[in-house]
Amino acid sequence: MRIAIDAMGGDHAPDVVVAGALEAAREWADTTIILVGDSARIEPLLQGTKPSNLVIRHAAEIIEADDEPVKAVRRKKDASMVVAGRMVREKEADAMISAGNTGALMTTGLLVVGRIAGIERPALAPMIPTMDGKGVLALDLGANMDSSPEQLLQFAIMGSIYRDKVHGVANPRVGLLNVGTEAMKGNELTKAAYPLLEQAPIHFVGNVESREVLKAPCDVLVCDGFAGNIMLKSVEGAASVIFSVLKKEFTQNLFTKLAALILKPGLTKFRRSFDYSEHGAAPLLGIDGLLLKSHGSSNAFAIKNAVRQARIALQNDLVRSISKEISKGSEL
Amino acid sequence: MRIAIDAMGGDHAPDVVVAGALEAAREWADTTIILVGDSARIEPLLQGTKPSNLVIRHAAEIIEADDEPVKAVRRKKDASMVVAGRMVREKEADAMISAGNTGALMTTGLLVVGRIAGIERPALAPMIPTMDGKGVLALDLGANMDSSPEQLLQFAIMGSIYRDKVHGVANPRVGLLNVGTEAMKGNELTKAAYPLLEQAPIHFVGNVESREVLKAPCDVLVCDGFAGNIMLKSVEGAASVIFSVLKKEFTQNLFTKLAALILKPGLTKFRRSFDYSEHGAAPLLGIDGLLLKSHGSSNAFAIKNAVRQARIALQNDLVRSISKEISKGSEL
Repeated sequence: MRIAIDAMGGDHAPDVVVAGALEAAREWADTTIILVGDSARIEPLLQGTKPSNLVIRHAAEIIEADDEPVKAVRRKKDASMVVAGRMVREKEADAMISAGNTGALMTTGLLVVGRIAGIERPALAPMIPTMDGKGVLALDLGANMDSSPEQLLQFAIMGSIYRDKVHGVANPRVGLLNVGTEAMKGNELTKAAYPLLEQAPIHFVGNVESREVLKAPCDVLVCDGFAGNIMLKSVEGAASVIFSVLKKEFTQNLFTKLAALILKPGLTKFRRSFDYSEHGAAPLLGIDGLLLKSHGSSNAFAIKNAVRQARIALQNDLVRSISKEISKGSEL
Repeated sequence: MRIAIDAMGGDHAPDVVVAGALEAAREWADTTIILVGDSARIEPLLQGTKPSNLVIRHAAEIIEADDEPVKAVRRKKDASMVVAGRMVREKEADAMISAGNTGALMTTGLLVVGRIAGIERPALAPMIPTMDGKGVLALDLGANMDSSPEQLLQFAIMGSIYRDKVHGVANPRVGLLNVGTEAMKGNELTKAAYPLLEQAPIHFVGNVESREVLKAPCDVLVCDGFAGNIMLKSVEGAASVIFSVLKKEFTQNLFTKLAALILKPGLTKFRRSFDYSEHGAAPLLGIDGLLLKSHGSSNAFAIKNAVRQARIALQNDLVRSISKEISKGSEL
């Protein structure tokens, strides 16, 4: 397996990306790690310890976090992210991982690598942490603001296959993000998507209210990117406000400080479970190649974990499985 | 002022509704409270203490919480909610308050009372609690699942007038619920609504991310009912999960129980500020009459507070102010 890693993407690139790549190369001797980026900056970070299964592919340009995605991908043809995407398209790499600009990675997927035949829109599918620790794969969360019912159906199929192939969840439960549980609830989009999901070759469990998501009522949550983003950021916002108030309460006086000390271990552990960066890389599903988006603030451990995810997805032939299922649908 | 109260609506009707009505009648001698509902059930609750400004208007039927709204309003012509709506339409009452079936109240507004001329869709506008305690008026939260840009514009105008007239917030800041702060962010709806809001006679402060809402970045938050519901229920869900985990941590052992005891007063106060039922009744804006929706779980205090809100809205001529501003818009 050959996995290309965008060495220049992410808040702490290239340092932590190179460190994570090194760890991955050491752990999996059967995998070639290709660090794509500025070799003059990558070389010194290897400190002469380069394992034989780690190689550098020089790329002179960088797509920055605030670059306009489409423009950046079109103009910076020698950017590390774009070069990695080209390697996937030309079968020089089996997968790519980037912690860089999310929009640019989606554009790289669409314009450089290309879609699976029959897929209307690729979808970004991060894991949402849940109380039971297992998480819900939500899609789309980023790639598309306006979706059609047919696109939601494709998201459901792709998400199901991913959960099965990569997470080993047999017959994953698929829910539709909605404002109520009854079949006729929702807006025009969800009302039209519901019957399509009912008839699809998936385990559809019906509508899921955003209030319930953290209780893991499903393994795959289907939504358009706008509603999904509103949901995710509302949860983040509420958690952030509550924890900041807790902090304030904890520091009121000597007694509350003492109380805080006692409670701290449990709460820190809990707070971490709400940290989205701890839940692995998000696949960009529907692209004719394996693309994984690591969180921008990823540390070396997160980068290594993304390599682990990529290996499992490759071993289980994720992309071909999606392609097969989608082509079945279009034959009907 | 004559305020009709649906005595049969809400989880604890008619008991707490009658108790709240009694308190209101005692507090405001200049206001006639009309309790609409089953007189055989209301009379005993008054226990011979009926103030002269409290009257009963008998209505034999009740719209239940699980009744299908449109069907119920059309068929149960003698339901307490429908009778109260008819009193508003026929100027026998200046306002109505109900803690009953939300959908049925919106239907009563639309079909029994009727819209303000020029208003495409009425909107339900509850207050969302914020960290500073002031809250954000969010609309629409319930009446419409799919909105047009022009409807969002009307929501913005109506919300601004309400905040000004009823809450005394001069020049209220209006935000558009969105997935990013930049003008070009969002779905087709928000992208089309943005320039309309920019040109409107309101204090538009731009897009507001759901992550920020609890920090009160605006006084009025405009959204379609679907996105608004997803936001609100995500916040509720996150808060509920976090507080339930806290509770678990607090009861781990003797030390954590002691710690919990110390922190309890501060946290209880905070948790209450997240309780939507403590933030007053939600107006149904755009109806040609004043309709207020109290929370289903309202206690007597909440019912009395709804009367207070209704009085302020009537004193400041809310409905006519909205009507005037909307007719200006249609002349342009």
